Amino acid sequence: MTNPKSLPICFWGVCLILSLYLGAQAQPPRGPLVVSPKINADKTVTFSYLAPTAKSVELSAQFEKGPVPMTKDAQGIWSVTVGPVKPDIYPYSFRVNGVTVMDPANVAFFPNERFKASLVDVPGDTPLIHALRDVPHGSINYEYYPSMEGTTGSLVVYTPPGYDQNPSKKYPVYYLISGTTDTEETFFKVGKTNLILDNLIAEGKARSMIIVMPYGNIAARVAEQKGGSKPADPTVRDGADAVKRANDFAEDLVSNVIPYIEKSYRAIPNRENRAIGGFSRGGGQTLRAAFHNMDKFAWVCAYSSYLSPQEMDGTFSPIVNKPNQTNKQLKLLWVSVGSDDFLYKGTVEFMDYLKAKKVNFKSLITDGGHTWMNVKTYVAATTPLLFQP
Amino acid sequence: MTNPKSLPICFWGVCLILSLYLGAQAQPPRGPLVVSPKINADKTVTFSYLAPTAKSVELSAQFEKGPVPMTKDAQGIWSVTVGPVKPDIYPYSFRVNGVTVMDPANVAFFPNERFKASLVDVPGDTPLIHALRDVPHGSINYEYYPSMEGTTGSLVVYTPPGYDQNPSKKYPVYYLISGTTDTEETFFKVGKTNLILDNLIAEGKARSMIIVMPYGNIAARVAEQKGGSKPADPTVRDGADAVKRANDFAEDLVSNVIPYIEKSYRAIPNRENRAIGGFSRGGGQTLRAAFHNMDKFAWVCAYSSYLSPQEMDGTFSPIVNKPNQTNKQLKLLWVSVGSDDFLYKGTVEFMDYLKAKKVNFKSLITDGGHTWMNVKTYVAATTPLLFQP
Repeated sequence: MTNPKSLPICFWGVCLILSLYLGAQAQPPRGPLVVSPKINADKTVTFSYLAPTAKSVELSAQFEKGPVPMTKDAQGIWSVTVGPVKPDIYPYSFRVNGVTVMDPANVAFFPNERFKASLVDVPGDTPLIHALRDVPHGSINYEYYPSMEGTTGSLVVYTPPGYDQNPSKKYPVYYLISGTTDTEETFFKVGKTNLILDNLIAEGKARSMIIVMPYGNIAARVAEQKGGSKPADPTVRDGADAVKRANDFAEDLVSNVIPYIEKSYRAIPNRENRAIGGFSRGGGQTLRAAFHNMDKFAWVCAYSSYLSPQEMDGTFSPIVNKPNQTNKQLKLLWVSVGSDDFLYKGTVEFMDYLKAKKVNFKSLITDGGHTWMNVKTYVAATTPLLFQP
Repeated sequence: MTNPKSLPICFWGVCLILSLYLGAQAQPPRGPLVVSPKINADKTVTFSYLAPTAKSVELSAQFEKGPVPMTKDAQGIWSVTVGPVKPDIYPYSFRVNGVTVMDPANVAFFPNERFKASLVDVPGDTPLIHALRDVPHGSINYEYYPSMEGTTGSLVVYTPPGYDQNPSKKYPVYYLISGTTDTEETFFKVGKTNLILDNLIAEGKARSMIIVMPYGNIAARVAEQKGGSKPADPTVRDGADAVKRANDFAEDLVSNVIPYIEKSYRAIPNRENRAIGGFSRGGGQTLRAAFHNMDKFAWVCAYSSYLSPQEMDGTFSPIVNKPNQTNKQLKLLWVSVGSDDFLYKGTVEFMDYLKAKKVNFKSLITDGGHTWMNVKTYVAATTPLLFQP
C-alpha cells in the first residue's frame, strides 16, 4: 500500500466483500478495528466480532461446555470475556445468527476438511512445552512425493535444529499421522509438534529426530486427482471399508513415503530408527501399519485410538500369540487416551486386552477428551521415549 | 477412527459444533455430505453449502461482479453453478444470512489477517503455470529467525528442485513480500510461487533460485510478542506512518533476514544474486528497501505498487538524479499493474515519472484488478528475467 489517500474509504463490513472484488488487498478496513482474541493478564480472554446488524453472536470454544452469548457495543462490536482459561491452545469459532464462522481478525486456524475453526493460544506464566521459546529452531518443510496410482502426495516434514549445519549427521524418523478430517498440516499448525520438539531437544529430553506428517486420507486424494474434483467426494472417506483404507494408507507409507524420505533426507534406514504414531484415525492407521510391518517400525504410539479384540485376534494373531517375540521387537508400544474421550472405553479395553495377552505397552490416561490439547500432551510425553537405548 | 459404531450419530450442522466440543476429530458428519467446490468438465463450477434453516445463501467469488444467489434443495443444501470460469485460482466465500463464511468443505484457504476466504482452482485444459505438474518439485520451508527488538520472526522459504541433492551448489535469492493484511504464507498458499518456479525451472525458463517470503507486518508482530496480545492491535498497521514502517521492514530485512538466510541456506551473498519484489504494500516496501540499499539488491520488482513523485524526488533523489548510475546498478527494475487495479493511476504515473527521469524499467499492464490472479501472472513473468546474464 503506497498511497492511503487514493484508497476507497469503506466500512469494515462492506470492505470484507469489497476486498474480495477489489483484490483482497486493500487498506485494512476503516471503521472500528477489532482485536480478537485478546489475552488479558489474568488469563481471561476477550473475543470480539464486528457485526452491527447481527441478531445474535455466540462464542463456541473448546474450553467452554457450551455456547457463550456475546454482547454488542455502540460500534456494533460483539464481545465477551471468559475465563481465566487454563493455558493451552484451543479451537474456537463464532456463531453469528446461527452461522459458524472463524474469527476474521485471527490468522491462527485449524486445518481441517470439514469445519473451519480459529485457534487461541493462552500462554503459561512459565512457557508451556509448545510455546515459541528462545531456543534453536528446527524447520518445517512442505514436500511432494510420488504416491499411489500415479498421484502426487503431500507431506509436512520437521527437521531438527542443526539439521542443515551437520551435513554428515543422520537422524531417526517419527512418522506421525493426524486424524479423520485433519490434513497433513494439523500436527504442525494445531499440534505445534515442531515447537514441542525444539523445546524438548533444547532441554536435552528428546533426541534430535525427523518427523514426517503425511495426509491420512489417501483415498480422497487419489479420487480428487483422478477425478478432477476438488475436494474429493467425501463419501470416499471412512466408513464400512475403513480397514481397507487403513491398509492402503500403510501400503503408501511403506512403499512410497518411506523411500521418498530416505532418499530426500538424512534418515537412518532401519526399523530401530523408525517410529510410527498417530491420533484417532491416525492411531488406527498406526497400529495396523506397525503390526503389518514389524520389520519396518520398532516404536509405536497410538494416541486416542485402539484396535478391537476381534481384529487383533484375527488379523494380528502373530502379534498377540507370540508376545515374547513382539515384546522383543517393539522398543515401545504406547497407548494413551483422555478420560472424557468418546473412544475412552474402547481404548481401555485395548489396554486390558494387551495386558491379558502379555504384550508390553506403556500407557497414559489424561483428563479431557478427544482433543488436540491432549494430542500435544501425548506428543510431549512420547517423543522423549523414542530412539532411546 | 477405529470403530465407527461407537460414535455418536449426529447431523452435520450439529456435528460442526459437537466436533468442537468432542474434539473436532469425530467421524465425518452424518447426514448429507457436501462436495464443494465441484469443477465440472465444461469449466462451470458448482458451489454448495449445507444450511437447512438459513434464509439466504449467496456466493461471493472474485470471478463474479457481485453476489450470486444460491438455491436450497430438499436436503437443505444450497448450491449454484456458475461459469464457465476462466481457468485460474480465485478467492471466494459464502454469505449466509448476511454473514461471510469460508467453505467448510474446502481445505484450500487464503491466509490473511482481516478476512477469511476459500480458494477454488479451475484447471486449464493444458496445465497452467501454477498447476501441480509431474516435474521435479522444490520444497517450502517454514523458518524462525531472530528479528528486531528481541522478537522472533517467521519466514517461508522455497528451495528449488535438487537443492538437497547438490550440497555444494549455491543459489541466488529472491526476497518476495506480500501485501497489506497478507501473511508470510500468502505467496505460497495463494500465489503458488513454489509450483510456478518448479514449472518454469523444469521448462528451462527460470534459473534455480531460493525464494524468501517474509511477513510484511513487522510492527504488528513486534507489538504482539512484546504485548502478549494475539493478534496484535491492528491500529499498529499501516496509516500515517506507513513510510516509517516500510523503513523498519527494510531494516529488519537487511539486518536480520538476509544474514539469517545466508547463514542457513546456500545463498550467493552479493547484490547481483539478490532480487527483491512484492505486491501492493510489499511492492512499496520493495522499492524503498531497494532504493535505500543499492549495494544489496540488483533486481527489483514492484507488483501493483509505486512510490509517489514527491517521495522519489525527496528521499530517493540519488536514484533519479543519476539515472546512468542507477541504470548500471539495477539489472532489472520492473513495474506491473492491472488496468482495473485501484492503484492503476498511481502506478502508471510512476512509470511515466521513471521514463521522464530516464530510469530504465520494464513494465507490464494486464487486464484485471488488484488480485492474486494478477500476482501469479507477474511472478511467472518476472522470475524468468532474474539472475540472467
